[in-house]
Amino acid sequence: AIREFLDHQNISDVAELINEYPEYESQIVANMAIHRAASVFKILDIAQQKDIVKELPSAKTAELLNELPADDRTDFLEELPKAAIRDLIKLLDPEEIRITLSMLGYPEDSVGRLMTPDYVYVYAHNTVTEVFSTIRKHGKNSETVDVIYVIDEKGELLDDIRIRDVILASPEKKLHEIIDGRVVSLNVNDDQEYAGQVFKMNNRVALPVVDDNNILLGIVTIDDMLWVANEEFSEDMQKMGGTEALDEPYLDIPLLKLFRKRIGWLVVLFLGEMLTATAMGYFEDEIAKAVVLALFVPLIISSGGNSGSQASTLIIQAMAVGEITISDWWRVLRRELSSGMLLGAVLGIIGFIRVAVWHSIAPQLYGPHWMMIAATVGFSLVGVVLWGTLSGSMLPIMLKKLGADPAVSSAPFVATLVDVTGLIIYFSFAYLFLQGLLL
Amino acid sequence: AIREFLDHQNISDVAELINEYPEYESQIVANMAIHRAASVFKILDIAQQKDIVKELPSAKTAELLNELPADDRTDFLEELPKAAIRDLIKLLDPEEIRITLSMLGYPEDSVGRLMTPDYVYVYAHNTVTEVFSTIRKHGKNSETVDVIYVIDEKGELLDDIRIRDVILASPEKKLHEIIDGRVVSLNVNDDQEYAGQVFKMNNRVALPVVDDNNILLGIVTIDDMLWVANEEFSEDMQKMGGTEALDEPYLDIPLLKLFRKRIGWLVVLFLGEMLTATAMGYFEDEIAKAVVLALFVPLIISSGGNSGSQASTLIIQAMAVGEITISDWWRVLRRELSSGMLLGAVLGIIGFIRVAVWHSIAPQLYGPHWMMIAATVGFSLVGVVLWGTLSGSMLPIMLKKLGADPAVSSAPFVATLVDVTGLIIYFSFAYLFLQGLLL
Ligand SMILES: [Mg+2]
Ligand SMILES: [Mg+2]
Ligand SMILES: [Mg+2]
Ligand SMILES: [Mg+2]
Ligand SMILES: [Mg+2]
Ligand SMILES: [Mg+2]
Ligand SMILES: [Mg+2]
Ligand SMILES: [Mg+2]
Ligand SMILES: [Mg+2]
Ligand SMILES: [Mg+2]
Ligand SMILES: [Mg+2]
Ligand SMILES: [Mg+2]
Ligand SMILES: [Mg+2]
Repeated sequence: AIREFLDHQNISDVAELINEYPEYESQIVANMAIHRAASVFKILDIAQQKDIVKELPSAKTAELLNELPADDRTDFLEELPKAAIRDLIKLLDPEEIRITLSMLGYPEDSVGRLMTPDYVYVYAHNTVTEVFSTIRKHGKNSETVDVIYVIDEKGELLDDIRIRDVILASPEKKLHEIIDGRVVSLNVNDDQEYAGQVFKMNNRVALPVVDDNNILLGIVTIDDMLWVANEEFSEDMQKMGGTEALDEPYLDIPLLKLFRKRIGWLVVLFLGEMLTATAMGYFEDEIAKAVVLALFVPLIISSGGNSGSQASTLIIQAMAVGEITISDWWRVLRRELSSGMLLGAVLGIIGFIRVAVWHSIAPQLYGPHWMMIAATVGFSLVGVVLWGTLSGSMLPIMLKKLGADPAVSSAPFVATLVDVTGLIIYFSFAYLFLQGLLL
Repeated sequence: AIREFLDHQNISDVAELINEYPEYESQIVANMAIHRAASVFKILDIAQQKDIVKELPSAKTAELLNELPADDRTDFLEELPKAAIRDLIKLLDPEEIRITLSMLGYPEDSVGRLMTPDYVYVYAHNTVTEVFSTIRKHGKNSETVDVIYVIDEKGELLDDIRIRDVILASPEKKLHEIIDGRVVSLNVNDDQEYAGQVFKMNNRVALPVVDDNNILLGIVTIDDMLWVANEEFSEDMQKMGGTEALDEPYLDIPLLKLFRKRIGWLVVLFLGEMLTATAMGYFEDEIAKAVVLALFVPLIISSGGNSGSQASTLIIQAMAVGEITISDWWRVLRRELSSGMLLGAVLGIIGFIRVAVWHSIAPQLYGPHWMMIAATVGFSLVGVVLWGTLSGSMLPIMLKKLGADPAVSSAPFVATLVDVTGLIIYFSFAYLFLQGLLL
């Protein structure tokens, strides 16, 4: 009965069922036809996948892992400790072992980890009728038949052809009359993120993967790109929030691991931020003479941090989606120079007015030199916002240039940088306007 | 010659050519076969698309817009001012006008804007042979033939079937013997972001779109989901950096528009941050008595901001990819309580040591009560980091609960909140430890 019920559910509904009743996860998977079980398994969280493999009898696990498409199997295995990988691989059929080991041999986050060797290939001298009989023979186990791959005797990729074009062609036509010789392929060592860009720009639901000699090794299907996009998105977001990439769902990651991913950057930022105490110490006498100066410190430095966060986020995002490259730095700098001036001017004027208004309400607050104090605040805001905008925008580009991940120049990172320099800007303007008056 | 050269290039290569030589963009498009021109046009930036439409003779524009798939045409038109839309729609064939107007009638960011009415549909009583002849008749103009849609006489959706299953079935079989009655469909009013989740969870390269009465209106193809993911990603990132969503590439957006997207939040944050000056003013006498207190203000409040940025980013990201829902708030709170304590403890200890070490080097710096100062700094850090972590994690969940976009609780937003409350925490600990000594 449960089997029948499960057979009538969509894959995504079964996955939701497992999310709601995690205590039955392995029973649910065990009570489904194996190809449907595999389809459910591959869309589950890594934590659920681990649990299920742990709970299932090893004969069932073997069946499941053998049924799982090679790409999804690799995606699961790569998250496990070495010893567990070894044990699970032993459960596979010899051919699947060979495939899995070769895929795990490619670098993490490379196209080699995403591809599947289950595709339909044909030769240029085949007729349309022959293509259909090849599909009938091998199509059942292939990842997709939406695109068919044309190779030569050496296994080199000649072209890909959409099933639509095969269906629309007359049965006796040979493939070399249909194909156009234009083909977009991925290299097995390409980065997954790059693969996503190629999919976006080429109207294909699957792309062929070749080695450096153009030998066809497998295909990547577009559905996996949605998962890659999600993963890259999460990674970038987390880095930009000042955390290491978690690589696991927030609720699943062990608390101590979560702590370790966060404390590193937090300490680095804290050590950097210590320089503010040093800088403030340097101006201690000035603060003692004019305590009023201290009042505006948080306001001023945080404005630099906020404008810096804006700038760095805009640039990191634009670089992530490929709108900006390193060579655009000059255009970016010019835009941010104008933006920073404008933004700084607005905040500077509001800051000046703030002091003037408070003064008119309570004249004893800032005393006779209120206007110089207002000027100090106003001009400091212009300087700090401009500086925040410029450093926030240039830092990601510089990091990229140095080969580092631009997402590391996160909002907290930029804010820290600007906090320290912002103090120096502020007290410099204070000297300028208040020397001989309050200082 | 240029025509022949362009015919041998991949679509993505032509798009790159246009990126490199923008001055030739309309000539390049004009010199391609119209169906290839349309394929290039749809992957260009909106700014390039606008330029091309402006430069092309209107006969050519008409041809291009009529050839463009309905979903891509809508995607282009929705970015234009109302008057321009009206002028361009006049260039379309009557049937395309009808389609376009109905698509533009659906809300922005809804599935209705993404769908295309060009799909292949068949009836359950059709045989496999009949399906193939339908594809040969109508497949050329359909967006995809990878999935075929089975409807009844009223136009209601019964099931979808992959082309693979049609090819693998014997020619005389009727469809109702092949279909399984399980179908995943999108509602025309569904949000695009939700559609992306459905694609991720269901192994389909196209999904049917129905109205509230299950009438099939169109299909959405998975390739468009990569663009949606990119757009949502950019939007979320920009909001999290404290900017309004740009909706245009950074380098294309006019400077004044860029300024307007940034200044709003910056002013809001600035007004919020003004409370720090008020709070500091409230403690002015204490600062005057113990200037040393002012030195640590930036260090303490920024630590709260940094831990708050981490927490809010982690939660926003996890909510964006569907790992956390509102109902998980209690689990999140418990995790962040422990995380905040641990993170705060580490920074608190480092802060304590910082004061102690400086004291041992220069005993006059903090004077005889250095230990109480160190305790003030240390305990404030624990409190501020804990508070930052808690408010950073709960704010996105609360915003979602209130129906707002959680991404608005950006790093700068949380930092501002924590700056103000951080000052109160800090000076409270100062009273506790230093009253009767320095205060
Ligand atoms: Mg992976
Ligand atoms: Mg990665
Ligand atoms: Mg081709
Ligand atoms: Mg695949
Ligand atoms: Mg796959
Ligand atoms: Mg990345
Ligand atoms: Mg759009
Ligand atoms: Mg949107
Ligand atoms: Mg079905
Ligand atoms: Mg579409
Ligand atoms: Mg499309
Ligand atoms: Mg969104
Ligand atoms: Mg700050």
